[in-house]
Amino acid sequence: MQTPSLPTRLLAEFLGTFVLVFGGCGSAVFAASVLTDDSINMGIGFLGVALAFGLTVLVMAYAVGHISGGHFNPAVTLGAVIAGRAEWKDVIPYWVSQIIGATVAGAILLAIATGKDGFDPVASGFATNGYAERSPDGYSLAAVLIAEIVLTAIFLYVILGATDRRAPVGFAPVAIGLALTLIHLVSIPISNTSVNPARSLGVAWFAGPDALIQVWAFVLAPLIGAAIAGFTYKMLFPDPEAAEPLIGKA
Amino acid sequence: MQTPSLPTRLLAEFLGTFVLVFGGCGSAVFAASVLTDDSINMGIGFLGVALAFGLTVLVMAYAVGHISGGHFNPAVTLGAVIAGRAEWKDVIPYWVSQIIGATVAGAILLAIATGKDGFDPVASGFATNGYAERSPDGYSLAAVLIAEIVLTAIFLYVILGATDRRAPVGFAPVAIGLALTLIHLVSIPISNTSVNPARSLGVAWFAGPDALIQVWAFVLAPLIGAAIAGFTYKMLFPDPEAAEPLIGKA
Amino acid sequence: MQTPSLPTRLLAEFLGTFVLVFGGCGSAVFAASVLTDDSINMGIGFLGVALAFGLTVLVMAYAVGHISGGHFNPAVTLGAVIAGRAEWKDVIPYWVSQIIGATVAGAILLAIATGKDGFDPVASGFATNGYAERSPDGYSLAAVLIAEIVLTAIFLYVILGATDRRAPVGFAPVAIGLALTLIHLVSIPISNTSVNPARSLGVAWFAGPDALIQVWAFVLAPLIGAAIAGFTYKMLFPDPEAAEPLIGKA
Amino acid sequence: MQTPSLPTRLLAEFLGTFVLVFGGCGSAVFAASVLTDDSINMGIGFLGVALAFGLTVLVMAYAVGHISGGHFNPAVTLGAVIAGRAEWKDVIPYWVSQIIGATVAGAILLAIATGKDGFDPVASGFATNGYAERSPDGYSLAAVLIAEIVLTAIFLYVILGATDRRAPVGFAPVAIGLALTLIHLVSIPISNTSVNPARSLGVAWFAGPDALIQVWAFVLAPLIGAAIAGFTYKMLFPDPEAAEPLIGKA
Repeated sequence: MQTPSLPTRLLAEFLGTFVLVFGGCGSAVFAASVLTDDSINMGIGFLGVALAFGLTVLVMAYAVGHISGGHFNPAVTLGAVIAGRAEWKDVIPYWVSQIIGATVAGAILLAIATGKDGFDPVASGFATNGYAERSPDGYSLAAVLIAEIVLTAIFLYVILGATDRRAPVGFAPVAIGLALTLIHLVSIPISNTSVNPARSLGVAWFAGPDALIQVWAFVLAPLIGAAIAGFTYKMLFPDPEAAEPLIGKA
Repeated sequence: MQTPSLPTRLLAEFLGTFVLVFGGCGSAVFAASVLTDDSINMGIGFLGVALAFGLTVLVMAYAVGHISGGHFNPAVTLGAVIAGRAEWKDVIPYWVSQIIGATVAGAILLAIATGKDGFDPVASGFATNGYAERSPDGYSLAAVLIAEIVLTAIFLYVILGATDRRAPVGFAPVAIGLALTLIHLVSIPISNTSVNPARSLGVAWFAGPDALIQVWAFVLAPLIGAAIAGFTYKMLFPDPEAAEPLIGKA
Repeated sequence: MQTPSLPTRLLAEFLGTFVLVFGGCGSAVFAASVLTDDSINMGIGFLGVALAFGLTVLVMAYAVGHISGGHFNPAVTLGAVIAGRAEWKDVIPYWVSQIIGATVAGAILLAIATGKDGFDPVASGFATNGYAERSPDGYSLAAVLIAEIVLTAIFLYVILGATDRRAPVGFAPVAIGLALTLIHLVSIPISNTSVNPARSLGVAWFAGPDALIQVWAFVLAPLIGAAIAGFTYKMLFPDPEAAEPLIGKA
Repeated sequence: MQTPSLPTRLLAEFLGTFVLVFGGCGSAVFAASVLTDDSINMGIGFLGVALAFGLTVLVMAYAVGHISGGHFNPAVTLGAVIAGRAEWKDVIPYWVSQIIGATVAGAILLAIATGKDGFDPVASGFATNGYAERSPDGYSLAAVLIAEIVLTAIFLYVILGATDRRAPVGFAPVAIGLALTLIHLVSIPISNTSVNPARSLGVAWFAGPDALIQVWAFVLAPLIGAAIAGFTYKMLFPDPEAAEPLIGKA
């Protein structure tokens, strides 16, 4: 099977990242906490949001992973290239597609959210990431950076391992999607969980200056974590035959 | 393997849509909120209802998807036909089977629900969809229409992509079922989530005039979203060899 | 691959049904509701119990399904025989193994539960099924019978369909286990969910006369539902080549 | 495919056990209970922690299971060796790697946790296991030992059965990971769930003398349960051809 053309692959990355932000951040914005008239909380909580983020990647990796490799995340693209699973010349086009997909999703989420009286994207946080006073449960910048770097590295290890040609065929999207759920189960209280610069940017544009001022951490830390994992995976678990696009074999 | 006869396929669509409404709407009616005598909420909340809806499609797509394609949803049938995965002549029979299956499920849910003292399908909402004053968390008609159109389009992209012959074999029901869970995680507070005209009609008959007056939105928006996705998927990700019934390859 | 000997298969049924009751009823007894000292409910609720029941079948069907067919449920054995997927001569031995496995699990659960001060199996209900005044949310006997019959029939349709030789290979335990989760998401508030006479008996022995007096309904209704589904599946979706043990092909 | 070198396998065990403790214990430390300013609990509860533990094994078994067999647990290594699926000479190196991986994870969790004001690993329990006054819901030592032995034995049965060459190929990580989720759904209130001496040790070092004094039970009971299961599985379900590394076939 030949590799699809670059425009087709960029479209797949746009779509996948759109769904990641629309589904993941959307579940956080609309459904995390919903009180009924008699004060019962029907909301999905951090558990539901963690599940939603993971399912976005699981379902879109099955839907278009065979086209683009199913990165949907600039850090994943970087780690995949460093590990030798994707090409340097694709990095910038992939990043641009991912960020545009995330941003379009953020804009549509905002349009829907304003359909409820009293919604304020700045006051509500709009599912943005944050540290210190913007951390959901009050974690420091240092704690947030450690968590984001370690968790993104774990994410890349799962991605590179599950798409390794020695792993069972077809299951990579399950492993990768559920790894993203796991990552959110650990770290929503710490940083609202990024591990994905596009996801962070896609909603930060719309959430006021405080959110934008902190967004550098959620661009930088995931890229560092992914680069470390990509480099060490290639060194520690080399496979001379592995040169296919990520997930493409699934 | 030859395609099963039309009556056999219609029976499979009847059964699948019956389970979708009985399981999905049933979990909402019976289990979403259950207070114990000492006021502890044991109910499954929106998270449990989202899981239930997704599991109905996952399990029935494995059970009878190889017979009928596993649509269980008039919008899916429409999108599949437009994308070239099913035939125009099957649309009306599939729609009729799906709506009958959903309605029979709604009737049996009502019979069970009335076995609890004080149940009122109109006052409780009976798991119907709604906008504005009937939206679970107060979203406007415009917000509901955008959400239903976008989410149904996402659903069809996952369905068409995961059943594409380039995708891993056998996993389509997992991807499609969990996509429906994802869609509910985002939008139960907005519209109680339709993306499926049969699901909306199956309970609306029994929930009073206010529910029926709004049901047009949940017939129209899913069909529009599915049509857009079916048309654009075929244009953007063409596969000259793909002419099989939906999920039938799974 | 030849069929394992009857004693080996009975051992597998004993083990699987043991895990079903130990895991499913155990999660209900120990974890459904757990209040911390400052009155936060950390318990898994009906959602967690529903997940636990489904996972017992999913994991044990992968573990020993290739040995015995993975019934773990007298109603499933009956429905499988009626559908032509198992043999009449195995029914009584399978039933005995399943009921013994369930009962041993109930006894060990009781031993663990009494390790907490103040535990009373009669007052707590000990995860037994019930109707009317013993229904978790007050449903009548008629509602309970309808729900148990319909849900067991759905369960058998998923089992027979997902193990049909036309369905994707290997996924049957996922479909069947998650179908049991779906069934619990709908009906824990109604009857505490049986669909399995062995599961009902395994805990009823230890929960006092009120529980035992009602247990007939949870033996009878699942058997009726399974018989209906087994008979109609064979009529409606015949496969001349299907004569293998249930799930054995998975 | 030849077996990877011992150092490569030990690295995989280090990584997998690191993720197990970082993800499983991390979710418990950071996310189990999170109150918002208006006292709504957004935390993931025992259900979320149970899911997190299971997902750590599911994702890492897909990532590196083909390298080391994916034990991530000294009890699993012991049971696998007794069942004839791994070699005695690997036991000590595997145990050392697993305990180091768990301990490094515990240390990083502590570093992140101290980034929140007022965190105290001793007072909070730091996700350690315990019995009697340290049991989350007050279970006696005897109850804890029974639960840990039975549940570890169930875990090993699932592992040995799902990696048996007669089971469906590729699904073992799903079955094994979800078995660990099931085990946690039952027993977090009893003992905070170990079934894994490395997991217990990895956090106990950092949680004060009371935690360390009780840790013997969570080293001993899982090893006993695994040994019983390994021995009986080999006796009861013999397969003359099964001599491959655990999960390695998946």
